Amino acid sequence: MAESIFSKIIAGQIPAFKVYEDEYVLAFLDIGPLSRGHTLVVPKEPAETLDKLSDDSAAALGRVLPRLCRAVIEATGVVDYNVLENNGAAAHQAVRHVHFHIIPKPDRERGLGVHWPTQSLDTDAAQLAARIRAAVR
Amino acid sequence: MAESIFSKIIAGQIPAFKVYEDEYVLAFLDIGPLSRGHTLVVPKEPAETLDKLSDDSAAALGRVLPRLCRAVIEATGVVDYNVLENNGAAAHQAVRHVHFHIIPKPDRERGLGVHWPTQSLDTDAAQLAARIRAAVR
Repeated sequence: MAESIFSKIIAGQIPAFKVYEDEYVLAFLDIGPLSRGHTLVVPKEPAETLDKLSDDSAAALGRVLPRLCRAVIEATGVVDYNVLENNGAAAHQAVRHVHFHIIPKPDRERGLGVHWPTQSLDTDAAQLAARIRAAVR
Repeated sequence: MAESIFSKIIAGQIPAFKVYEDEYVLAFLDIGPLSRGHTLVVPKEPAETLDKLSDDSAAALGRVLPRLCRAVIEATGVVDYNVLENNGAAAHQAVRHVHFHIIPKPDRERGLGVHWPTQSLDTDAAQLAARIRAAVR
């Protein structure tokens, strides 16, 4: 696993505006926020992408997400928000350590901007679903 | 909780291209995909937004996410992807039942389009972090 700025924050070598910590998870403010209250939720396990994260870390992270979302809503007063986790440079991942963004959406300009280039479902959807289903282990 | 198309899929009243199911979670292909293999991961609990989801459902959903991401990668051959969960119409939520998108990013055109209007961290970041921290319950 490559060392990243997040492993240094987890190790306490770099400061951060921490909002939550437990055995598996650390959460802190993003230093380049898309909106006020933009928070990163990071597993302590140094997995680069979500597909490489252990079940236990992923469950622990999932478990605290609703709680952290409620806390961000309460502190910012903004009820709309996006939760985003990017994997790979092509998918906008900037730090190679899994991180879930909680990004308040206070208005059109601030927060995450999303483009949604919807396509039609392929005619092979049933086969594709079967292939994914078979690949779940 | 409002009934949605997802509660009908969970109840088996509407068909879907299912890829995974357990006690807490159902996953199926998005019928308006942003790219081939675009998968929705849905808690069976009918929470409208992530902040309203129970800890146990959120943990169960988190636990299966890495497994489902690996299966989508294996079935599509695309290693870059975004995981996105939208809350509120202003944040692009279309169905009022929590759903995590797994969206392969095969190239620039297909998959999720992200705009990242970075701001500076407010000068009150320490206070804001303290307020979020105090609000975590």
